[in-house]
Amino acid sequence: MTEEVLRRKRNGGRAGHATRRGKAAIEQMPWRLPVNLDRPIEPLTAEGVQAVHEAAMFILEDIGIEFLNHEALDILRDAGCTVQGENVRMGRDFVMEMLGRAPKQWTITPRNPERQITIGGDHILFGNVSSPPNYWDMATGRKLSGTREMCRDLLKLSQYFNCIHFIGGYPVEPVDVHASVRHLDVLYDTLTLTDKVAHAYSLGKERVEDVMEMVRIAGGHTHEEFDASPKMFTNINSTSPLKHDIPMLDGWIRLARRGQGLVVTPFTLAGAMAPVTMAGAVAQSLAEGLCAIALAQWIRPGAPCAIGTFTSNVDMKSGAPAFGTPEYMRATQMTGQLARFYGLPMRSSGVCAANVPDGQAMWETSHSLWAAVQSGTHMVYHAAGWLEGGLIASPEKFVMDCEVLQQIQRYMEPATFATTPEDLALEAIREVGPGGHFFGIQHTQDRYEKAFYQPFLSDWRNYEAWDIAGAVWTHERAHGIYRQIMAEFEAPPMDVAIHDELLAFVSRRKAEGGAPTDF
Amino acid sequence: MTEEVLRRKRNGGRAGHATRRGKAAIEQMPWRLPVNLDRPIEPLTAEGVQAVHEAAMFILEDIGIEFLNHEALDILRDAGCTVQGENVRMGRDFVMEMLGRAPKQWTITPRNPERQITIGGDHILFGNVSSPPNYWDMATGRKLSGTREMCRDLLKLSQYFNCIHFIGGYPVEPVDVHASVRHLDVLYDTLTLTDKVAHAYSLGKERVEDVMEMVRIAGGHTHEEFDASPKMFTNINSTSPLKHDIPMLDGWIRLARRGQGLVVTPFTLAGAMAPVTMAGAVAQSLAEGLCAIALAQWIRPGAPCAIGTFTSNVDMKSGAPAFGTPEYMRATQMTGQLARFYGLPMRSSGVCAANVPDGQAMWETSHSLWAAVQSGTHMVYHAAGWLEGGLIASPEKFVMDCEVLQQIQRYMEPATFATTPEDLALEAIREVGPGGHFFGIQHTQDRYEKAFYQPFLSDWRNYEAWDIAGAVWTHERAHGIYRQIMAEFEAPPMDVAIHDELLAFVSRRKAEGGAPTDF
Repeated sequence: MTEEVLRRKRNGGRAGHATRRGKAAIEQMPWRLPVNLDRPIEPLTAEGVQAVHEAAMFILEDIGIEFLNHEALDILRDAGCTVQGENVRMGRDFVMEMLGRAPKQWTITPRNPERQITIGGDHILFGNVSSPPNYWDMATGRKLSGTREMCRDLLKLSQYFNCIHFIGGYPVEPVDVHASVRHLDVLYDTLTLTDKVAHAYSLGKERVEDVMEMVRIAGGHTHEEFDASPKMFTNINSTSPLKHDIPMLDGWIRLARRGQGLVVTPFTLAGAMAPVTMAGAVAQSLAEGLCAIALAQWIRPGAPCAIGTFTSNVDMKSGAPAFGTPEYMRATQMTGQLARFYGLPMRSSGVCAANVPDGQAMWETSHSLWAAVQSGTHMVYHAAGWLEGGLIASPEKFVMDCEVLQQIQRYMEPATFATTPEDLALEAIREVGPGGHFFGIQHTQDRYEKAFYQPFLSDWRNYEAWDIAGAVWTHERAHGIYRQIMAEFEAPPMDVAIHDELLAFVSRRKAEGGAPTDF
Repeated sequence: MTEEVLRRKRNGGRAGHATRRGKAAIEQMPWRLPVNLDRPIEPLTAEGVQAVHEAAMFILEDIGIEFLNHEALDILRDAGCTVQGENVRMGRDFVMEMLGRAPKQWTITPRNPERQITIGGDHILFGNVSSPPNYWDMATGRKLSGTREMCRDLLKLSQYFNCIHFIGGYPVEPVDVHASVRHLDVLYDTLTLTDKVAHAYSLGKERVEDVMEMVRIAGGHTHEEFDASPKMFTNINSTSPLKHDIPMLDGWIRLARRGQGLVVTPFTLAGAMAPVTMAGAVAQSLAEGLCAIALAQWIRPGAPCAIGTFTSNVDMKSGAPAFGTPEYMRATQMTGQLARFYGLPMRSSGVCAANVPDGQAMWETSHSLWAAVQSGTHMVYHAAGWLEGGLIASPEKFVMDCEVLQQIQRYMEPATFATTPEDLALEAIREVGPGGHFFGIQHTQDRYEKAFYQPFLSDWRNYEAWDIAGAVWTHERAHGIYRQIMAEFEAPPMDVAIHDELLAFVSRRKAEGGAPTDF
């Protein structure tokens, strides 16, 4: 049992106070579901959208997708698709009928109902970095294999920051925990250190069943309550090009049956797993995603689905993946146009190729985050903490990204562009007159505390003041804030009985040997 | 005479080869005038645009602007404006009639006609950082007063990078050169080290007359040729709130008479020199800018004008200016909507409050650059090299910004979102099939060299390769590239006779004592 949970128990169960936590290391914006009212950037004409759609349909109808999972093959054969061996071709009428069943927007309710999120509509939501095998921080300045302790620290950051709306996959892979029981330990940590929406890796039947059960227990739900609406989600990747593997579909099918959140994100690197041309890579990605959504809608009409994009390009000199590139931005925007065409919520990412939290890391991440905004993305995966093309998780980068995420949230507040008479302030302008100053006047005094975004990490002092304070660069300031958050972190409250049930489940499943590792 | 010019002369005048220079330190994108086809982001509704317009007109009609320059007062009185002391009020009919005379797009032709730029239309153009009094680089890691040598180095960077389309003000103030002759020395450097569009500070009559004459000589123009179309430009700032000073208008009036480029950019920090509410700050900025453009159009109908925005917010804790903030982005977008409403080309900036070229510097600059793109900005001032709210110029930041500018240029190329059958690549997708790879196929081979943007500064290697190569952070790599560019820089060719005439002019004007410094 972790120290945090023990302390919470000694304090009498639900003793935590979100308000106290909020005042701890930094002053941050409150929890909210941001609303993105900007008209999306749409590089494709209506004919361009149609051309990409036709290409995706051609891939599904004429080329086909391989489904290695035989349970999925049986379902799709039953649905009337043309199954030859593991190749599945599906007609556009079937695909479009299935997509018509998918809700345009849906909710996920975690164990703390106040942290419910809405996927779709005008919302844009941010999740932590997911799945890097490695970790880097300023304390060592070295790339290290992920551990459970690092994973827990990054989960604490994910809980701490109000601009993180959902927990994606493991924020770093705890490779010191055996793969057979890793999902049990990390989900235990996720469900006790955070009260936000949790995620299950679709790595075979056993893991998703375990995670669904743990989320159900943590939420205090009956099985019927759990199945009635999404309480968690999964994100699967196709094995591009044109293939869905066995364990991912095992999870996908099971979550679909129980009405849980389903996100499919092909990883289509143009020039490697997809055509070197961006429109082709987008069309292929859409085809790979749409067929999984069609499967889910056949299994459970109205299953809550979202289509993801992870289309980027490689460095043609080295074959290394690149992120936050101009091509990445356009692929994301194009996918947004097609997601709206299909009426599906969309997922994209906050990504970079940089190895350390420096200038390149921030312009690449910034480009990917603005592409998310411009594309009408609803879920931004990896929005905080990602380095080295997703191979490294970094707490400093996490803190830096959260500063940018807060600024994006503030950017979306209508107050920044309101034009009421009070905003136009003509009487204030007349009062101050030529050569005057607005600092002291009543119009300013009434508003100055909330007029502008207040950063927690950006340093806006002049050079001299910054220099006297130690000339601390951004990544170093981020490290300090990270350490402070770790020192002050308090886990959200959890009912003692629920916690005991969760612990008992983990113990029992560990005693049973956990999940198979031979996939 | 500088070493570069001597070497060029010994080599026989016009001996430089742009192609040789282009291959030197880095591989960069060719010179081009980028075209921005993205639909602008428009936070204001049609009613909101009308409300901001009405507010600007109210300021001009009812509150008035102070013109300290009596020559301007006489002209505006003659034009029928209501002049009381130095306060000028102008009716909206007059303002709108004058704005109707302003061209929607215009060109500036520098001494090398191949470097002609078009201000307006769909173009977005980038200029170097202008006017910081201080300099910072990695070699010293300290803030130093600007010198002519630093200024020359930054002019070389401005010439070197093809993504820099025009030279703004002095890239750093050479405070080691007396103010009476500073314009002569820096313009000599600008006109010999670069062949791009040059700028004159409107700091009194003498300076703009000197600069116009030097640009005329450098271009080999007669006086009539010079006056026939813009060969250079100025940028003036109002003294916000609501005031235009004497020396700025001295220059403005003289450039207007000779048909040179005119940009007016009020510096309206919300909460200090403008209302604390962004719409009010934007309305005030517009009023201050529009009255200067009305003046220019009365003096010379069709004078080439652009309206600038430099509306940002202050840190309400310290009063320090902040840049690249959410409020800055919205102010820039709102100004873009009003610039289109008035049919005027628009200027904005690449800005940050950061003191060193770190993560904060790049996310703030990135936010301001994307705001420029989203607002439909035509001229992006300070697009490379700016730190500390414009008080520091940095060569490393310059190099880093140029990497981002190139990526923005690439982002705008229609190839990134083309949907021809070759782009959709269905035959390639069929050929590769499930589980295959696109690296080796003909469709990839035919395109891979030009398929994707190739960075000169971003490091896309994995951590291990980057680590073995010295674990060099972005700002350190930028320093290396800066040193390399300095070592390999060759000035663009200049005819010997023209160069002699330029030198003689500088010598004569220095002998005459230069320009007054008592403004």
